[in-house]
Amino acid sequence: MTHALLAMNPVHRDPLFGPAEIARLTSLVTVDPALVVQDFTDISLEQVEVLITSWGCPPIDRRVLDRAPRLRAVVHVAGSVKHHITDACWERGIAVSSTAADNAIPVAEYTVAAILFAGKRVLPIADLYRRHQAVPDWTAAFPDLGNYRRTVGIVGASAIGRRVMHLLRRFDLDVLVADPYLHTGTAEAALVTLEDLLERSDIVSLHAPELPETRHLLNRERLARMRNSATLINTARGSLVDLDALTAELVSGRLHAVIDVTDPEPLPPGHPLYDLPNVLLTPHIAGSIGGELRRLTRTALDELERFTQGRPFAHPVNPALLHRSA
Amino acid sequence: MTHALLAMNPVHRDPLFGPAEIARLTSLVTVDPALVVQDFTDISLEQVEVLITSWGCPPIDRRVLDRAPRLRAVVHVAGSVKHHITDACWERGIAVSSTAADNAIPVAEYTVAAILFAGKRVLPIADLYRRHQAVPDWTAAFPDLGNYRRTVGIVGASAIGRRVMHLLRRFDLDVLVADPYLHTGTAEAALVTLEDLLERSDIVSLHAPELPETRHLLNRERLARMRNSATLINTARGSLVDLDALTAELVSGRLHAVIDVTDPEPLPPGHPLYDLPNVLLTPHIAGSIGGELRRLTRTALDELERFTQGRPFAHPVNPALLHRSA
Ligand SMILES: NC(=O)c1ccc[n+]([C@@H]2O[C@H](COP(=O)([O-])OP(=O)(O)OC[C@H]3O[C@@H](n4cnc5c(N)ncnc54)[C@H](O)[C@@H]3O)[C@@H](O)[C@H]2O)c1
Ligand SMILES: NC(=O)c1ccc[n+]([C@@H]2O[C@H](COP(=O)([O-])OP(=O)(O)OC[C@H]3O[C@@H](n4cnc5c(N)ncnc54)[C@H](O)[C@@H]3O)[C@@H](O)[C@H]2O)c1
Repeated sequence: MTHALLAMNPVHRDPLFGPAEIARLTSLVTVDPALVVQDFTDISLEQVEVLITSWGCPPIDRRVLDRAPRLRAVVHVAGSVKHHITDACWERGIAVSSTAADNAIPVAEYTVAAILFAGKRVLPIADLYRRHQAVPDWTAAFPDLGNYRRTVGIVGASAIGRRVMHLLRRFDLDVLVADPYLHTGTAEAALVTLEDLLERSDIVSLHAPELPETRHLLNRERLARMRNSATLINTARGSLVDLDALTAELVSGRLHAVIDVTDPEPLPPGHPLYDLPNVLLTPHIAGSIGGELRRLTRTALDELERFTQGRPFAHPVNPALLHRSA
Repeated sequence: MTHALLAMNPVHRDPLFGPAEIARLTSLVTVDPALVVQDFTDISLEQVEVLITSWGCPPIDRRVLDRAPRLRAVVHVAGSVKHHITDACWERGIAVSSTAADNAIPVAEYTVAAILFAGKRVLPIADLYRRHQAVPDWTAAFPDLGNYRRTVGIVGASAIGRRVMHLLRRFDLDVLVADPYLHTGTAEAALVTLEDLLERSDIVSLHAPELPETRHLLNRERLARMRNSATLINTARGSLVDLDALTAELVSGRLHAVIDVTDPEPLPPGHPLYDLPNVLLTPHIAGSIGGELRRLTRTALDELERFTQGRPFAHPVNPALLHRSA
């Protein structure tokens, strides 16, 4: 049987692998499920053919590879592989699979729920009802209320962005998309420039990867282009937004926001974003958490099964696309 | 041209009819769009062939009908027709159309967003993050977290309930339905008893109509059957739930809830449900509000157009089903 090794922060082992997952794992490969490696230094890698990795796996660099002559594949039970897959892996021709597509599912679900609630101002209205303990005049407070013919702008036709656009087809919303790598729009969304998108959208949702060129993609000037009382949703990365500029727009009440990621993360205690009625702030939970982690494991075990059968991965990571990927 | 009259609480005229809607209305029928009747007493009904009604239209009873010899149809730009369509209307053979199916759309959207947020505990986690201003241990706080293979129970395969089940197909959730008028389950949901549904569901969503037999459908005993830390969503009617029993379950923290409707409504000031981190309380906003009202108007004008062309309504109200309808 194929020899495998688990490499990740050990805190992720049990959430990812319950008894059923361990049983399937050990039926597929020779592996010690009790051994979870977070540092390759003192571990023999001589026999290892597949690494099963997740968050916290150390970089698989040349020195590691030199000690792992049989390593042929990495199955990553998480999203981005950029933290541990090095150029040396690609040069050695290691096959890499990632469950990033599965990890897109909960982020897209969180985003769609956030869009529907934001369009209807559900949380600000709940806040008014709680504070006044009487029926608030929501139409006076939010003249642009309602999920009917409003415009949603998707920044980044990434795995998550595409899934959000797909889910949004079910609703009476007009969808715009901005992405420098797209050449045409689709049935789901019209392709526009980022500036256009910011000026026309009632809700703007960020789904671009963290890259040098996306740092402060939404800077002060671009945030200022957003419509009055528009909502910004950020489930991508905090670095995409100039936090000080966004904070000013939210403290003034001009914009609304749903923020799952910030830079820094967590926000420092006392930060104004912790306590604004026009902001829903969550601590980086849009991705797979709790039982959602088992979805990743299921796909990863499917990939492992394909590998043991000599079949190619269904979800291979393409190194040529990494410069524009999460 | 057909003679029409608007009958509703005048506050609804402008939200329902903007300039474009008025233009289309007056192109279809002879009507004074400035006249919005809330009391038929002093109004001549002699010429009226169609009543265009909405929330606040007074009952169209025998005395009204006697004064409206040409009345043949009512186009209701709202949901339930039970407040104004009397038996006398059905006996006279008045054709009645309602936009209840359109009004189901925003309620279903609110419900789906509420399900996705509840399954992931988004609002309780946001509350912990806000209070501690540090990353909370959400897995310890909510061991059953996540929208993957959780069970959602739909009480009532009503227009709204069916739409919710349809939207839920896109997600990795198991769906149960309880409804005394259903004989078989569907591809979307397995048919079970209400007791079974309450015992098996992580999230229970109410979509049954307010009827004598649904009063306190969720009484103390039935609420006690719900799983620990399950979520109850009520966008139907407050009378379906024993509020005191539910309040006890929520104050103790055993259950979570998303509550759009209560009995009484609004809740009295100082009611405990105003201030619980495990409760999202909204003031009856799940239905069409703000711009969503124009969706109803569009369908109502389509119905009016069909009527003027001598075609049957696309959304007729069937009096034989009213005993089990909202
Ligand atoms: N909040 C969470 O828990 C969570 C979980 C998973 C992913 N994420 C984040 O979500 C975002 C999307 O992840 P993904 O896996 O869908 O990404 P991905 O790797 O699929 O995205 C790549 C695509 O992004 C688009 N893109 C690249 N540069 C862009 C730019 N400058 N402007 C607009 N679009 C651009 C291109 O279409 C590119 O092909 C990333 O920032 C990722 O880190 C967050
Ligand atoms: N919150 C809001 O703003 C809002 C807006 C619109 C409707 N509503 C409410 O939503 C609910 C559903 O409305 P609708 O228009 O979809 O209803 P509907 O008229 O389509 O529902 C009728 C169906 O309900 C089901 N039903 C009847 N009795 C039942 C019982 N005892 N148990 C379970 N199912 C039963 C049957 O399938 C019946 O055919 C109603 O309570 C309505 O008042 C609320």
